[in-house]
Amino acid sequence: MPTKTYHQPVQVYYEDTDHSGVVYHANYLKYFERAREGVIGPAALVALWKEMGLGFAVYKADIQFLDGAEFGDTLDIVSTVRKDSDYRLVWHQEAWRPGAGKAAVKAEIHLVCVDREKNLKAIPDVGIDFD
Amino acid sequence: MPTKTYHQPVQVYYEDTDHSGVVYHANYLKYFERAREGVIGPAALVALWKEMGLGFAVYKADIQFLDGAEFGDTLDIVSTVRKDSDYRLVWHQEAWRPGAGKAAVKAEIHLVCVDREKNLKAIPDVGIDFD
Amino acid sequence: MPTKTYHQPVQVYYEDTDHSGVVYHANYLKYFERAREGVIGPAALVALWKEMGLGFAVYKADIQFLDGAEFGDTLDIVSTVRKDSDYRLVWHQEAWRPGAGKAAVKAEIHLVCVDREKNLKAIPDVGIDFD
Amino acid sequence: MPTKTYHQPVQVYYEDTDHSGVVYHANYLKYFERAREGVIGPAALVALWKEMGLGFAVYKADIQFLDGAEFGDTLDIVSTVRKDSDYRLVWHQEAWRPGAGKAAVKAEIHLVCVDREKNLKAIPDVGIDFD
Repeated sequence: MPTKTYHQPVQVYYEDTDHSGVVYHANYLKYFERAREGVIGPAALVALWKEMGLGFAVYKADIQFLDGAEFGDTLDIVSTVRKDSDYRLVWHQEAWRPGAGKAAVKAEIHLVCVDREKNLKAIPDVGIDFD
Repeated sequence: MPTKTYHQPVQVYYEDTDHSGVVYHANYLKYFERAREGVIGPAALVALWKEMGLGFAVYKADIQFLDGAEFGDTLDIVSTVRKDSDYRLVWHQEAWRPGAGKAAVKAEIHLVCVDREKNLKAIPDVGIDFD
Repeated sequence: MPTKTYHQPVQVYYEDTDHSGVVYHANYLKYFERAREGVIGPAALVALWKEMGLGFAVYKADIQFLDGAEFGDTLDIVSTVRKDSDYRLVWHQEAWRPGAGKAAVKAEIHLVCVDREKNLKAIPDVGIDFD
Repeated sequence: MPTKTYHQPVQVYYEDTDHSGVVYHANYLKYFERAREGVIGPAALVALWKEMGLGFAVYKADIQFLDGAEFGDTLDIVSTVRKDSDYRLVWHQEAWRPGAGKAAVKAEIHLVCVDREKNLKAIPDVGIDFD
């Protein structure tokens, strides 16, 4: 069965760039998280936190920075996700500049689920059909 | 003639909050700038910078923080702008939480236009009908 | 009685600048807060939060941006504070570039104290001799 | 010959945390960059940029997040660096919480050197004795 691919646009603002003229590298982690929150849905994440005291945490992130996005770019954040075990979601995420032939930034990001005391918990059902 | 009012939605992400549970105060300045960039248009701002070497700079910001937005809120950023002189734009901007009876944050923000050497320049035509 | 003046150095890093080459305006609010946390002391703030459920919140900020700090600058954040009422601290804070004849950024920042439900509380004793 | 190990303290401020109560994951990339800038020296980096038009860019970052730092922590950022080729610096960097028995966050970060047009350049001499 093919994996579902999610797309989310992200506008590059002044705040995102640094004095070298391109997006500051750490900000791609923010873009990737915004896209993950878009896939799961903010309402589901709020309910998880407020009602069950659970949140997702990044456990591992491997990122390659191949090109630098610039102010004014509307990036396409492309995401897929699979459930690697009862305790781990593995996301592949890429940031594409407009009209580009390859991704500007590529990442594999592992999420775990923790309670308020930072204890590991099984990944809850958040309405995603995982592979 | 009535002033034109612009609306821009802003999603509150994890990155925006701090450990007290609400949006970190400095981030509203980012939201307000995203909204201003939305009004003027990123393409116009890029052209201004690349072709004419001009950019807008915040000269003055007076902000009141009346309520704290939370993770998951979709804020409505409400903006109006007037040209105060050949050299200054004055924006009134507010951040509204969903269903709120009053603005969570209100600001008056003065913009000037500067060249790459930070010299003050007259506000260029950016396609906005100012009052 | 003269007001006590506090100094805190802040190094301007890549992350602080934007593509125009100077510090992104919202980041001065971060610098000013770091300086306020330095005056009160992180340990006192942690104790206030964990033991009494109290935190400071910015209620009002009036800022003037007169010059743009650059990557590599070590700024001197100069702060004074007075207790305006039982419920409000008023800080005057400035960011000075190295060797400058005047402040690059000046702010008046009003702090209130709130509990975890955002109810206003009297300013607690945090070991500062207010004027 | 043993590798030189660099230590840089980083204070965790309100701005660094998110609503889950710990440091937002992307911010460790900022801490690591501050530490790298501390090793090389801001003045050397400014000269490189202004006089030679050269800057360092992160090409690859592999990060593990093992524990969450909290507001008030003074982290010890521990860094080593080796020159992997004429074109690449490889940094090992860790963030240690006060009194911890193991690193909270560990990263391997690859830097390249680029000119203003983003062309790859040989790593310049920045006064570090690489292994």
